[in-house]
Amino acid sequence: MITASIVGATGYTGALLTDILSQHSEVRLQTLTSKSYVGRAVRDVFPYLRVDGTYVEYSPAELEGTDVVFVCYPHAQAHGVVAELIDAGCKVVDLSADFRLTDPLAYEDWYGFEHPRSDLVVEAVYGLPEAYRAQVSRARLIANPGCYPTGMLLGVLPVAADIDGGVIVDSKSGVSGAGRTPTDKTHFCAVTENFRAYSEVGHRHTAEMVQELQLAAGHAVPVSFTPHLLPVERGILSTIYFKPRSGFIGSEAWIEKYRAFYKEEPFVEVCEHVPALSEVNRTNFCRMTVREDERAGVVKVFTVIDNLVKGASGQAVQNMNCMYGFPEDMGLRRGV
Amino acid sequence: MITASIVGATGYTGALLTDILSQHSEVRLQTLTSKSYVGRAVRDVFPYLRVDGTYVEYSPAELEGTDVVFVCYPHAQAHGVVAELIDAGCKVVDLSADFRLTDPLAYEDWYGFEHPRSDLVVEAVYGLPEAYRAQVSRARLIANPGCYPTGMLLGVLPVAADIDGGVIVDSKSGVSGAGRTPTDKTHFCAVTENFRAYSEVGHRHTAEMVQELQLAAGHAVPVSFTPHLLPVERGILSTIYFKPRSGFIGSEAWIEKYRAFYKEEPFVEVCEHVPALSEVNRTNFCRMTVREDERAGVVKVFTVIDNLVKGASGQAVQNMNCMYGFPEDMGLRRGV
Amino acid sequence: MITASIVGATGYTGALLTDILSQHSEVRLQTLTSKSYVGRAVRDVFPYLRVDGTYVEYSPAELEGTDVVFVCYPHAQAHGVVAELIDAGCKVVDLSADFRLTDPLAYEDWYGFEHPRSDLVVEAVYGLPEAYRAQVSRARLIANPGCYPTGMLLGVLPVAADIDGGVIVDSKSGVSGAGRTPTDKTHFCAVTENFRAYSEVGHRHTAEMVQELQLAAGHAVPVSFTPHLLPVERGILSTIYFKPRSGFIGSEAWIEKYRAFYKEEPFVEVCEHVPALSEVNRTNFCRMTVREDERAGVVKVFTVIDNLVKGASGQAVQNMNCMYGFPEDMGLRRGV
Amino acid sequence: MITASIVGATGYTGALLTDILSQHSEVRLQTLTSKSYVGRAVRDVFPYLRVDGTYVEYSPAELEGTDVVFVCYPHAQAHGVVAELIDAGCKVVDLSADFRLTDPLAYEDWYGFEHPRSDLVVEAVYGLPEAYRAQVSRARLIANPGCYPTGMLLGVLPVAADIDGGVIVDSKSGVSGAGRTPTDKTHFCAVTENFRAYSEVGHRHTAEMVQELQLAAGHAVPVSFTPHLLPVERGILSTIYFKPRSGFIGSEAWIEKYRAFYKEEPFVEVCEHVPALSEVNRTNFCRMTVREDERAGVVKVFTVIDNLVKGASGQAVQNMNCMYGFPEDMGLRRGV
Repeated sequence: MITASIVGATGYTGALLTDILSQHSEVRLQTLTSKSYVGRAVRDVFPYLRVDGTYVEYSPAELEGTDVVFVCYPHAQAHGVVAELIDAGCKVVDLSADFRLTDPLAYEDWYGFEHPRSDLVVEAVYGLPEAYRAQVSRARLIANPGCYPTGMLLGVLPVAADIDGGVIVDSKSGVSGAGRTPTDKTHFCAVTENFRAYSEVGHRHTAEMVQELQLAAGHAVPVSFTPHLLPVERGILSTIYFKPRSGFIGSEAWIEKYRAFYKEEPFVEVCEHVPALSEVNRTNFCRMTVREDERAGVVKVFTVIDNLVKGASGQAVQNMNCMYGFPEDMGLRRGV
Repeated sequence: MITASIVGATGYTGALLTDILSQHSEVRLQTLTSKSYVGRAVRDVFPYLRVDGTYVEYSPAELEGTDVVFVCYPHAQAHGVVAELIDAGCKVVDLSADFRLTDPLAYEDWYGFEHPRSDLVVEAVYGLPEAYRAQVSRARLIANPGCYPTGMLLGVLPVAADIDGGVIVDSKSGVSGAGRTPTDKTHFCAVTENFRAYSEVGHRHTAEMVQELQLAAGHAVPVSFTPHLLPVERGILSTIYFKPRSGFIGSEAWIEKYRAFYKEEPFVEVCEHVPALSEVNRTNFCRMTVREDERAGVVKVFTVIDNLVKGASGQAVQNMNCMYGFPEDMGLRRGV
Repeated sequence: MITASIVGATGYTGALLTDILSQHSEVRLQTLTSKSYVGRAVRDVFPYLRVDGTYVEYSPAELEGTDVVFVCYPHAQAHGVVAELIDAGCKVVDLSADFRLTDPLAYEDWYGFEHPRSDLVVEAVYGLPEAYRAQVSRARLIANPGCYPTGMLLGVLPVAADIDGGVIVDSKSGVSGAGRTPTDKTHFCAVTENFRAYSEVGHRHTAEMVQELQLAAGHAVPVSFTPHLLPVERGILSTIYFKPRSGFIGSEAWIEKYRAFYKEEPFVEVCEHVPALSEVNRTNFCRMTVREDERAGVVKVFTVIDNLVKGASGQAVQNMNCMYGFPEDMGLRRGV
Repeated sequence: MITASIVGATGYTGALLTDILSQHSEVRLQTLTSKSYVGRAVRDVFPYLRVDGTYVEYSPAELEGTDVVFVCYPHAQAHGVVAELIDAGCKVVDLSADFRLTDPLAYEDWYGFEHPRSDLVVEAVYGLPEAYRAQVSRARLIANPGCYPTGMLLGVLPVAADIDGGVIVDSKSGVSGAGRTPTDKTHFCAVTENFRAYSEVGHRHTAEMVQELQLAAGHAVPVSFTPHLLPVERGILSTIYFKPRSGFIGSEAWIEKYRAFYKEEPFVEVCEHVPALSEVNRTNFCRMTVREDERAGVVKVFTVIDNLVKGASGQAVQNMNCMYGFPEDMGLRRGV
């Protein structure tokens, strides 16, 4: 039994973590911090959560004695708290982008801030268990991957070294990916019966994709990433296009290759059919398939995840399970 | 003033044509045929249509005296009626795929039937006014383009000869594109909060795209087309990726190039921002923009149309206007 | 040809008025004011509007020379501007609640402010043309009805004097009724796949309903009104329950009674079937039917309107048409 | 550990039962029957279900040895199978309407068939544990309540004897309530951005409501029930109106009364706020609150359930738990 706390517990990822951790048989939830809801009960802020507890303001004292802290702050606002907690002896799963890039100088380019803790940048483990399970199990600090990179990387890792030229990643995400703060763009009337691309060149998640794909391929692979906003609450479908160096072998053979690559993975399902968002909704699974379009000289990979689960809070718990030696799917077996 | 009739008037495209033509100041609606609703009033079948009239069974006698007939049958079921009407002296706008391909032998490959009227296949004009306005104005038989090809072709025609390698077309369509017949795939519960690809290799509309792009480019250009099903009623957004032969010139310069290409077009709007479906919903406009992703070596074009309007019935009326010398936007100025 | 201006033109009702008036053949749009978008082009703020013009800050000088001004401010914020404009010689259609109640003292109870202009409160005409056409045609100041009262009153006026006891009004509205300002309650993720009641006792529109029903009945009739929030953009369906004094006569007879009452009305349609929101979406129609549930001792009336059209901007234009002697459906014939 | 089987396992309620029972720690799923999917794997028909097994055709032999059978056939088609299973010694939870009415003659009026087994009609227990827990625990045959009656009855049972006159029940349901068979009415394009009433007088569920309310009140109470179709997948919100005999006591006092009535219930939550569908989505809870509208002389009760869970399959499992002495929330604690 370990104790866990959540910093920034009233965004979507924090609320989902609250739900998952409150039912995890090896975890006792200790502290939930919030900026906007201090003193409010969990049940009052999220009537669908049947969890006891009250939000408190963040302070090191409130977090004292916690084994592991999940930090759910926006990028550029998390690293200070993360460093403070690590220095105080906690383990941290950081759901922000503040430790995902391995090059400390890259933060200025992509996120507009100079990173003050390059030591922790170097130490942090990129929390994609399918790629870094061993490192995760020994980590003090997990940089939990972005939602888009999770779906994209799981779709390209099996073929990273086989990509001729670059990769085109056309992703479609539900609105919860934009966070809980209401804006013109997340107003119901702006989204329903509508669809659009956004951040159509240079979305920040591109940096993670490029970094991890290069590490997997052994050389730089250009990534053209385009996110779109779906009129759904949850889920990301990524349609990924590449040309294989090794030639065309038929869809079935690609599927076999992917199955072999992921055969031990508890949360990756390679299927024959083209998966829909609903198949992974409220689960920690990533489901995918591959199709060869030989006529056009292209292989297509389709991956689906729930952006809040495998793309954020579920993966964070998967990482925690890995860090503490719990079964990797503990607390993640049923719908979440 | 001309008379117009609709064969197969009780699908989505037929119902929308009924609405548009009933308010067109140079058209008198003559005959509406249906297989399933013979004897039923228009207002009864479509309570939102405030149009008089009753559906009759198709017969040449019912169509006699009509100047122009819009045929809204499924592919492989239209060509017989179309030929009969043409032979009887009507002009025809065929909304099916039965005359879109210029090679009479291609129908067997793509649509599974041997075409009995290669004379009409050769005569038919592909009804994309932006590409074939002069021919449309003189045509007896219009092959009204498919919804996906309309959005795709308008997005690539300005650069057809400048494409290095192939084109990737990632399209997302509303459910009305699947037609009015209820199926497991169009059940509300199968679509809401969901998203998926379908016909993920070799969708039939690929044939039109390849044919018309080759004609515009002067040589064959591979097209990898992937349609997806959006949880919306109407609209298609196509994200199109290609590598330019001429090199990278910046997004602004691409936009200028597209604006110059379409400067006389009443229904094409090249804009700075990335357009959303809602901007063309219930209109005959195609709106688009271009973005250069030089880092990844790719140019992206985003086009949006309403699949039932510019992608079907609106474009059919635009063609009719062109055939009869009416202002091209007559009956299509307001929301439809 | 008259000139019209819109004060507060960048909310939903202002944007829709801009669309309708820009295509009205007897109107020239003069001035569009905004608080948040001064200096911005209409096309820039609302990409789906194909209307020229730029928003300016409100000032009497900008409005000078306008024949009629549509005021689209929130309640309690409109009356000052309305009074200023009336005093300057304009006619005004006020879409706020600030002149809807006939009793100047009622504003304190229902809206929390003391009304400074009881002279105008007394002069203002409640702009429901079906009830007050003659007065509207002579009015300087129209208090455009609330969206819920419009759907409710059209449903009960034919039987106002025949109601035994009170009326129960169970209304369900689209999200656009809550306005364009993004809030927690209008966030896409809070609305999609969800449904709830709100302001479940004492919603302010109750005051209008009670006032107008009393005037029509000749005596006070209790109204229990409950609004609910639908996961749709537009439309209000009201299910209205009452017990008739005159006894039970069968659904058909009630429908006949309603048809007789509304037989001259251009925008009221009494139908046999139970109408759906989609039948009036983007139109100025109110469609309704009646059902008798004799077993339970209740008559049910179902009315549907588009809350932004017949419930706001369309009705405002209908009132303007009436004030200036234009055909009442001018500018309102097609979808809006 | 008991064995359970599902007859008619490929509708929505059967699929959800499959999901719940496959994770129930005291149940082993034995047989799943289907008419349309014989020989198909569960995972193939419902890709989101991660359950082993294959559908077989119904036959008594396939069901032999099962302790309890859940019958998910439509009304009028279930009673034959139910009788056969009971006669063979199984316990049965029947999700159809075929044993809900206590008067054997009532089936002809409400469902159009003469009931052949009045002995079982008399024996069957109406499976609303909140009303009949003791009887359920001893039952061989459970008539699982309809979805609408469940939400309605839980909302009126605490005040059954206090209702002056009749009850008005205005219910709004998600589309899954209409079943999995695709029809014109459940087509995505017919539902999205739409809303309507249906079966607007005399819906069959009225019979259950009237029967059970009379039993609770000790005398007949008229019920006027009106269902509406929401553009959501799941959930029923019922707004219930009545006049109390005992007079007006304030909303707080009503809430207290309801809390006292339900204080031992594991699945009824009486709350202060007006509950939304999302609060009970994918759970077996019924959440409710009460508001007094003294000005209008009415008390309003708002109840929400998930129509597929507490309104069908979840309640069926709750009944099974009760029949076998398992904790009543076993298998129903997490989202389902």
